[in-house]
Amino acid sequence: MNPVQLIIKKRDKQRLTKPEIHFFITEYLNGNISEYQMSAMLMAILLKGMDLEETYWLTQEYIESGEVIKFENTNSRFIDKHSTGGVGDKVSLILAPIAAECGISVPMISGKGLGHTGGTLDKLESIPGFQIQTSLSRFKELVLKNGLAVISQSKEIVPADRRIYALRDVTGTVESIPLMTASIMSKKIASGIDGLVIDLKVGNGAFIRDIDTAKKLAESFNKIGARFGKKVEILFTNMDSPLGTCVGNSIEVIESVDFLKGNYQKDLKEVTFVLLSEMLIMAGIVRNYDKAENMILQKIKSGRALQRFAKFVELQGGNPDIVNDYSILGEAEYSLPIIADSEGYIKDINSREIGWALIDIGAGRKKVSDKIDHQAGVKLYKKVGDKISKGDALGEVFYNKGNGKIVANNIKKSYQIGAKPVQKRSMILGTFSSFGV
Amino acid sequence: MNPVQLIIKKRDKQRLTKPEIHFFITEYLNGNISEYQMSAMLMAILLKGMDLEETYWLTQEYIESGEVIKFENTNSRFIDKHSTGGVGDKVSLILAPIAAECGISVPMISGKGLGHTGGTLDKLESIPGFQIQTSLSRFKELVLKNGLAVISQSKEIVPADRRIYALRDVTGTVESIPLMTASIMSKKIASGIDGLVIDLKVGNGAFIRDIDTAKKLAESFNKIGARFGKKVEILFTNMDSPLGTCVGNSIEVIESVDFLKGNYQKDLKEVTFVLLSEMLIMAGIVRNYDKAENMILQKIKSGRALQRFAKFVELQGGNPDIVNDYSILGEAEYSLPIIADSEGYIKDINSREIGWALIDIGAGRKKVSDKIDHQAGVKLYKKVGDKISKGDALGEVFYNKGNGKIVANNIKKSYQIGAKPVQKRSMILGTFSSFGV
Repeated sequence: MNPVQLIIKKRDKQRLTKPEIHFFITEYLNGNISEYQMSAMLMAILLKGMDLEETYWLTQEYIESGEVIKFENTNSRFIDKHSTGGVGDKVSLILAPIAAECGISVPMISGKGLGHTGGTLDKLESIPGFQIQTSLSRFKELVLKNGLAVISQSKEIVPADRRIYALRDVTGTVESIPLMTASIMSKKIASGIDGLVIDLKVGNGAFIRDIDTAKKLAESFNKIGARFGKKVEILFTNMDSPLGTCVGNSIEVIESVDFLKGNYQKDLKEVTFVLLSEMLIMAGIVRNYDKAENMILQKIKSGRALQRFAKFVELQGGNPDIVNDYSILGEAEYSLPIIADSEGYIKDINSREIGWALIDIGAGRKKVSDKIDHQAGVKLYKKVGDKISKGDALGEVFYNKGNGKIVANNIKKSYQIGAKPVQKRSMILGTFSSFGV
Repeated sequence: MNPVQLIIKKRDKQRLTKPEIHFFITEYLNGNISEYQMSAMLMAILLKGMDLEETYWLTQEYIESGEVIKFENTNSRFIDKHSTGGVGDKVSLILAPIAAECGISVPMISGKGLGHTGGTLDKLESIPGFQIQTSLSRFKELVLKNGLAVISQSKEIVPADRRIYALRDVTGTVESIPLMTASIMSKKIASGIDGLVIDLKVGNGAFIRDIDTAKKLAESFNKIGARFGKKVEILFTNMDSPLGTCVGNSIEVIESVDFLKGNYQKDLKEVTFVLLSEMLIMAGIVRNYDKAENMILQKIKSGRALQRFAKFVELQGGNPDIVNDYSILGEAEYSLPIIADSEGYIKDINSREIGWALIDIGAGRKKVSDKIDHQAGVKLYKKVGDKISKGDALGEVFYNKGNGKIVANNIKKSYQIGAKPVQKRSMILGTFSSFGV
């Protein structure tokens, strides 16, 4: 087989065969197909597509490039939650201990933040001592022992994706349905799950900005999952404004712990509860949302979810006392309020702009190699639908370095204020099953 | 500017600005944009296109990446002929000395063969001593002195194309109208021409297989030429079967010398005469094809075109005695007839298959680094429309190494024989002006 002929085949919108996809991926990993040939192929795939069969073969090649975790001799259900990435999205920190407390095992292999979106691992690393790198055998042990573990993608799991994702990131080939499907589903399947609930974020702060593309992507996730015998449910959620109050790292950990203590921000609660309900229904633990909500509330009120979180932090080397003493996480040296200079109703908060603004004070990263300042971030006191007056504090920026004034000003600009009252929107746009795509 | 954002812009079918194209090309040449980013951009350009304005800017960047030849203090008309590449295409060797004899100056910067198509430079290098590399000042001197010179692309001329073409060749991004236009027109404009006649080959043996694509490419050549104040005429010619009798290197030189002695193969004569006529009309030397044909025939019959060829060979270091003594070129050690095993009329000869078959005996190259065997090749005694009987020699393979039998058999397979008589086709499909595209 000739790599150039395969690139031309895809470029001309022809279907690649299973042996051709196998050849292209394995020879790339062996160093016989160059980076520039792979990037031409990726652009051809992005622009000409792959059908479900090709996407399945590609996902299979990804999986087979590394190790696959198997949880054996257990009756537990292994269900993970994946988010396509948003601003202020700390759902994993809250959801995983509650799910574990309800009897689900959550083997979570997560990512670091890049661009305007934050990463679960960066938030966890703001906890002193917390280790995100472990061996796969230790990861399995933690999941079986405590019902959850959250680690970074190891070299053993889907090495094909590690290399290809890095290339996609610098060649404008991220936003492709088959490439996103192979990348996400391969890692989840290799992590040993039975089922997966995906939080597919749609809107100005998400990678996917329109619902039609989101539905196509959801269909791809669902069908590829089915080909591997995995249940996949997809929740479409609104990412037109940040989730919850805090955007940053340590402050999002604090918000998550507060949540586990029963202090919920409305939008964050809505998304977290629905995702958890879908996991519980998928696991066969409850039959409907009402039953799920009762169970979730009970796990929070009893304090058991918080205990499970503390245990999880401890098992991964972190200081579990943070659940009682937030000062362990440290505080940013400076803070600056964001003061409204007009009155009216908040129509929209552009979360993409907030994500990018925060990079300047180290709360996020532009490049993979950028270092995170864990204490930096913003608290948003006013959300979409709120009525504000001139002089009100819309939020507060926390920072150690960089120009807080510029960041505060950029965040203020991300607020759209209108004269008329605005109806508060639901965060949930629908589920894949309910849409019946 | 950010290279990834520019790739995404083109990927999303947006127009690049002049400063953006400038940035992408110059930063690539400076090493700040990687090969894999360039290849993603090339694939995006191939699939999403560039309008004429973008193509003009790209061509300009190509030209400005190197030196531009200027012929000063001369009244001569500098007109070149370019072929998009075919099988058995030795037209340049015949046309350039005749044009020079008619008073046109032909500054020809040519290429080596790649894939199934042959290269003028490989044919010339089969002449002992012939030098295809000279300084630009020596090239100018030769053109001004003898009316023609044929050299390889020097490092000084359009270095952007040298690097980008090599990348296109291995990433499936050759067949793009804006990229082909920038590549060809930049080199021709930098070589100091006033006008250009392009032999745009269409058919199974050409890069362009259908007339609609050929017309679009012709329009692009013509309009970009006009933007630089250059006349560009395009002749569409048939490449459904090889041109002339010989396909190889030294045997094509012999066929060319024979032509200049007045022994013409019909299809080769048709193409060469029309291209020459267009050059003579463009230069204002004659007004129509009849006048042109008279002048061309006179230059051949008088022996002056042959003398001019011998002088050209001598000035570039080759042995001019080859025009009288073909044995100087050497002969292949082995030959093998290709015997017809059925009877009927030749409907088609697949020249692409012949080109690829000949690579096995070294008459062509798969990779730029492959070495050519100058004596290897095939003579095709029977052409489209000819009636044949079982046992007739369709042709003869000449070779020093490789498996001649397999090559002869593959060439036999490229012949399609039918029961019914076949009308002989004209090689000329039309001109850009006559089509009025």
